Amino acid sequence: MRWLKFTAAGKTSWGIVEGERVIAVEGDPFGEWQRGTQSHALKDVKIELPLIPRTFYCVGLNYLKHLKEAADKAGTAPNVPDRPEIGYRAQNALIAHDEDVVIPASATEKIHYEGELVVVIGKKAKHLIEANAMDCVFGYTIGNDVSERTWQKADRSLWRSKNADTFKPMGPWIETDVDLDRMETVIRVNGKETGRFRTNDMIFGIVPFLVELTKYFTLSPGDVIWMGTDGASPDLKAGDVVDIDITGIGTLRNRFVKEKV
Amino acid sequence: MRWLKFTAAGKTSWGIVEGERVIAVEGDPFGEWQRGTQSHALKDVKIELPLIPRTFYCVGLNYLKHLKEAADKAGTAPNVPDRPEIGYRAQNALIAHDEDVVIPASATEKIHYEGELVVVIGKKAKHLIEANAMDCVFGYTIGNDVSERTWQKADRSLWRSKNADTFKPMGPWIETDVDLDRMETVIRVNGKETGRFRTNDMIFGIVPFLVELTKYFTLSPGDVIWMGTDGASPDLKAGDVVDIDITGIGTLRNRFVKEKV
Repeated sequence: MRWLKFTAAGKTSWGIVEGERVIAVEGDPFGEWQRGTQSHALKDVKIELPLIPRTFYCVGLNYLKHLKEAADKAGTAPNVPDRPEIGYRAQNALIAHDEDVVIPASATEKIHYEGELVVVIGKKAKHLIEANAMDCVFGYTIGNDVSERTWQKADRSLWRSKNADTFKPMGPWIETDVDLDRMETVIRVNGKETGRFRTNDMIFGIVPFLVELTKYFTLSPGDVIWMGTDGASPDLKAGDVVDIDITGIGTLRNRFVKEKV
Repeated sequence: MRWLKFTAAGKTSWGIVEGERVIAVEGDPFGEWQRGTQSHALKDVKIELPLIPRTFYCVGLNYLKHLKEAADKAGTAPNVPDRPEIGYRAQNALIAHDEDVVIPASATEKIHYEGELVVVIGKKAKHLIEANAMDCVFGYTIGNDVSERTWQKADRSLWRSKNADTFKPMGPWIETDVDLDRMETVIRVNGKETGRFRTNDMIFGIVPFLVELTKYFTLSPGDVIWMGTDGASPDLKAGDVVDIDITGIGTLRNRFVKEKV
């Protein structure tokens, strides 16, 4: 099932995508809901951010190629994680599919994409074990962990390098039925493929993360875990359009523009 | 004015604290509200977490003594910030005044408090300048940035060292009228003073932070910025009660207990 948050005729609600149409729903997928009577052509609705997570988790380094490329650029040896560890991103930075990533006026040309699988939590969960970990997963969406690499090197934390307003596109919708092992993540800039990797080829997969995180954290419905990316990105500039496509979910598309000052 | 989120007779609402009583309010302080007709003795109500911020900002190192003590422990030279930079904490970790901090079963004895002034944002704001920065501040509360120092050293990020469930007590209420330059932060463990510093004796104060952050971030009503701490903490153990008192706001009190496994 494919859950879309959308606006049509001035009203924002959840809906279920079926083919090229969206069926409006009363309520929300994390609680009580029922299918409504109205439907819209998908192309006619405004796609909204699926949700604002209570806690916004993000894995930093979870694919070998990305790790090695980052180490090569820094002139260091790759420091491969020996256990699942998590970081955070900031809610202010979230935008929806088709909304513009605004490159801050003071940013350098080192603006990069990172195409990521996003796990959406559906249930309150703590102290999960391997056998039941996946029960707390509601579905999956796509994230673009936009990064300003000059700031990423210069700053003490990832504050502005990864969390400037609009740096976290997420969407277009939440898909509940996927086959993780058959997924590929494909990134295109202005329609030309610039990256491709097996989505589930992670150093630590979803289950080890859920087990490790919930030793310490209670996950809540609507929390998201961005699972990291593989490969590297070319420098992006104003006018570029980045598509992140993940098999079985769909395509997250955002245009990059320059901040007006 | 002193805004309290509280529960009485099964109903949770905002209220205004006047002396030893709380007057119930309809609505909330960030939007429309009006004084209700009901009031309660403060001692009879359950004090709730004032809010769950959309984005949870926290300054890492913002006082000279704390910075020097941290550097001494690490055997390094103090690395004094040359500009205001921010980090984040996680919403899952928030608890209210008088709720228990649960020390995870796998934690070491290196459990420390950090008493912090918390700035509560009242208005949407971006690109603030020095002259108008304080206009976006709604009020102030108190935070205890509980930390597990062994994890803080061992891990790649501050994930479990600072964000384990219950590690972020915040409250007891939001005070809108304070005199920053007359504030002292006093910490007591089991009633005995263990720390004291001038609250506004920061390396970078609230205005420089608001100006710098809003170059990149839109602040939203209910966002919080924890402003860092000075000094060091003794090792805390199950049964300890930590009071953080800030002049003109009040006292945030929490008991530490051990996780039952």
